[in-house]
Amino acid sequence: MINSYQDTIVAPATTPGTGAISIIRVSGPDAFSLTDRVVSLKEGTVADAPGYTLHYGSVLDSGRLLDEVLVSVFRAPHSYTGEDSVEISTHASSYIVSELIRLLLEAGARMAEPGEFTRRAFLNGKMDLAQAEAVADVISSSTAASHRVAMNQLKGGFSKELSHLRSELLEMASLLELELDFSEEDVEFADREKLLGLLDTTRAHVDRLAASFHQGNMIKNGVPVAIVGAANAGKSTLLNALVGEERAIVTDIPGTTRDTIEEVMNLEGVLFRFIDTAGIRDSEDTVENLGIERSFRKMAEAEIVLGMLDGTSERKELAAQLALLGQHLSGGSQKLILLLNKADLVENSAYNKKVSIINNFVLSVDNKVNVLELSAKYGQGLDQLKSTLVSLEKDLISGQNATFVTNVRHYDALRQASSALRDCRTSLSCGIPSDLVAEDLRRALSSINAILGTDLLDPELILHSIFKNHCIGK
Amino acid sequence: MINSYQDTIVAPATTPGTGAISIIRVSGPDAFSLTDRVVSLKEGTVADAPGYTLHYGSVLDSGRLLDEVLVSVFRAPHSYTGEDSVEISTHASSYIVSELIRLLLEAGARMAEPGEFTRRAFLNGKMDLAQAEAVADVISSSTAASHRVAMNQLKGGFSKELSHLRSELLEMASLLELELDFSEEDVEFADREKLLGLLDTTRAHVDRLAASFHQGNMIKNGVPVAIVGAANAGKSTLLNALVGEERAIVTDIPGTTRDTIEEVMNLEGVLFRFIDTAGIRDSEDTVENLGIERSFRKMAEAEIVLGMLDGTSERKELAAQLALLGQHLSGGSQKLILLLNKADLVENSAYNKKVSIINNFVLSVDNKVNVLELSAKYGQGLDQLKSTLVSLEKDLISGQNATFVTNVRHYDALRQASSALRDCRTSLSCGIPSDLVAEDLRRALSSINAILGTDLLDPELILHSIFKNHCIGK
Repeated sequence: MINSYQDTIVAPATTPGTGAISIIRVSGPDAFSLTDRVVSLKEGTVADAPGYTLHYGSVLDSGRLLDEVLVSVFRAPHSYTGEDSVEISTHASSYIVSELIRLLLEAGARMAEPGEFTRRAFLNGKMDLAQAEAVADVISSSTAASHRVAMNQLKGGFSKELSHLRSELLEMASLLELELDFSEEDVEFADREKLLGLLDTTRAHVDRLAASFHQGNMIKNGVPVAIVGAANAGKSTLLNALVGEERAIVTDIPGTTRDTIEEVMNLEGVLFRFIDTAGIRDSEDTVENLGIERSFRKMAEAEIVLGMLDGTSERKELAAQLALLGQHLSGGSQKLILLLNKADLVENSAYNKKVSIINNFVLSVDNKVNVLELSAKYGQGLDQLKSTLVSLEKDLISGQNATFVTNVRHYDALRQASSALRDCRTSLSCGIPSDLVAEDLRRALSSINAILGTDLLDPELILHSIFKNHCIGK
Repeated sequence: MINSYQDTIVAPATTPGTGAISIIRVSGPDAFSLTDRVVSLKEGTVADAPGYTLHYGSVLDSGRLLDEVLVSVFRAPHSYTGEDSVEISTHASSYIVSELIRLLLEAGARMAEPGEFTRRAFLNGKMDLAQAEAVADVISSSTAASHRVAMNQLKGGFSKELSHLRSELLEMASLLELELDFSEEDVEFADREKLLGLLDTTRAHVDRLAASFHQGNMIKNGVPVAIVGAANAGKSTLLNALVGEERAIVTDIPGTTRDTIEEVMNLEGVLFRFIDTAGIRDSEDTVENLGIERSFRKMAEAEIVLGMLDGTSERKELAAQLALLGQHLSGGSQKLILLLNKADLVENSAYNKKVSIINNFVLSVDNKVNVLELSAKYGQGLDQLKSTLVSLEKDLISGQNATFVTNVRHYDALRQASSALRDCRTSLSCGIPSDLVAEDLRRALSSINAILGTDLLDPELILHSIFKNHCIGK
């Protein structure tokens, strides 16, 4: 693995915009001397400054004052990257920032690649790979839930669980080692029961982590909520009412929405991803039928289905719509909220007649079903719908210190570890020689190590793919 | 004037976005104690920290880690505002920034008003009003020229000239004072000649500064360049070719552009504001005629006129277009660049015949005229056009230390000062009593003081109108 860099990198660390301050980051062996070449401090030099001090200075470009700046000095290893580093604070002008970066490049710095500061922090041992990956998640987190999960990962909560798994795997390896030592003598392994017990516990732990990806992904990217129902039942109107703006095109013509439209929304700290779909009905229109097929696909992928029913429709129509919904529910774990829309147009007497149809439907499916009356047009029942959504996903905000896997790379590695442990158990049960069993164990260990970034097979390739999606300056 | 504030303000100082770092500023008497209530430093407290030091700390919200942060400490008066101040550096997450600001508000801070940090810097004597106003100009400057002028003003270059004017005015006042002392004795004032001389010098200085507003405004907002010519001569095509994208709607139908379209462009450090206008021709269409009227108005206001001529048109047509242009040129100071467009379609022999018409026109006007051949469609001649534009306005980039007035408030004050000095001279010439002359002088002095922010008549009102357009956090 690469442990140190010979070059010094520079990048803006703040978004160019209309704030008051911009920050430019410099990191690497020449960070101090290079900054001294560009910034004249009021007193002394950056090279002589102690770490964790601030210095006033001015930047001259061909004798002309570019800006007066503040320089923060961080001495290796007490910096973000673990290298000598400097942060230069300027007026938030994109002109000043680009000119100052030009001067630093001319003085010998190199423009940082995306995520290179964090990558150096990892390579210099300031954090493991799982923590380094969490930096981008912390920055992009927009809800209390996603922030909590990302911060837990950044502060090493996830890494601690992985270290625990590693020590369990290493313990198993040492038990196997013992057996290998005695293999010549064909001695039956004394602690085989213990080994099997440990194997099952560890695999259960790995599987639990892998299973948390389902919730972790929802915390990070939003709980998918499909709005499904008859054409013209008011699905787009509901989406607009929820997000509070005209996002979907609303008309009176059935079949207006053909593409699926998504909107994310933060409800009490949980991100929901609402997916408006094409109306379900028998249609001759090829394009519309493609839309309807897609509706069912989106419905299948959703965590929660909002089944929009037109409260003004006839009993027969209603029953048909419910049947169509019921056919396409995917398994018993999918949650369904039935929305009897257009409540403003339905009289009590008419409503009561429809209740029995709905009750029969609820009894006929395995899924958890909530039924709400709604007028999407007038916003009636919206608050109740929102609180129902939050209560269905309250697990995502409880569990302060629970670890959730949110990264698909980690999820894949955990599944590989689980599969290696399954092979390991099979091998043990079939009396396969210990050295082959040990090979399975090594595969599991290697998967866990890959998450932490120790023992990478092709470090450059893996690191590149991980950090390329970071921002410049991170 | 208000000299100190009792409350402590907070605001983000960086634009929320996708950078690596966000900065939150806190300033006021309780900046340190308030930050200590929200941030737990790894060692010691903010209240005990020396100025110009950096500290690592963590922010807990109800026991949950919100973020680990860096705290920069600035002790009064050695801070931007002149008060005790703190800058908190967090991960660049809008969630973290808003939560941290919430915690600081709960701890007793108040959300800063737009520009309030700079306003406090002014009120605490860290800069005069002209300098404080320059902060926003430095941040928004996008070219070398606008940056140079704004930075000169921020560093007190303009203020120095104003101080010089003030001392001249005070010297005149003392000369008048002398005369007042002897007025009882009806003694003719010995140094009246000296006073008149000083008056003329000072007024010339004030007028020179006021006159610089013409160039200063162009540096700040762009040199207005009107693209004027016959319908379908290729004006919109030229604008698109200049800005490198499809900004104006281009069709083959004469009269497509009815609204004026503006685009700014940085050419070698000078900002140009290109104004595409409706084609000039006889038209029956009321809407189009409104557009043509507006074209002439825009042409009148322009510093440079790009006269687009269709190179393929007949000699008679060409002469008519030139005559129309000539009639609407405003005075001899307006610069004209004649562009013989569609060069790709014109043969040399045909071109040569048109040269004499153009030469006759050039001789008939007082204005500075450049003539260029062009093919806007194929980009031919564009570079020459750009370098011609830059050479016509090279005064704006030369004169490293020249002062330009860029602020309309300053311009107004200078004109008032000039008018007061003119009255002063008239009074002196007419033998009006010295105390009335002194009154004129005081008016001039008060106008200059208003620019610097000393001696404001209604400080709250004036400061509010100046700082309300600043960003929050500045």
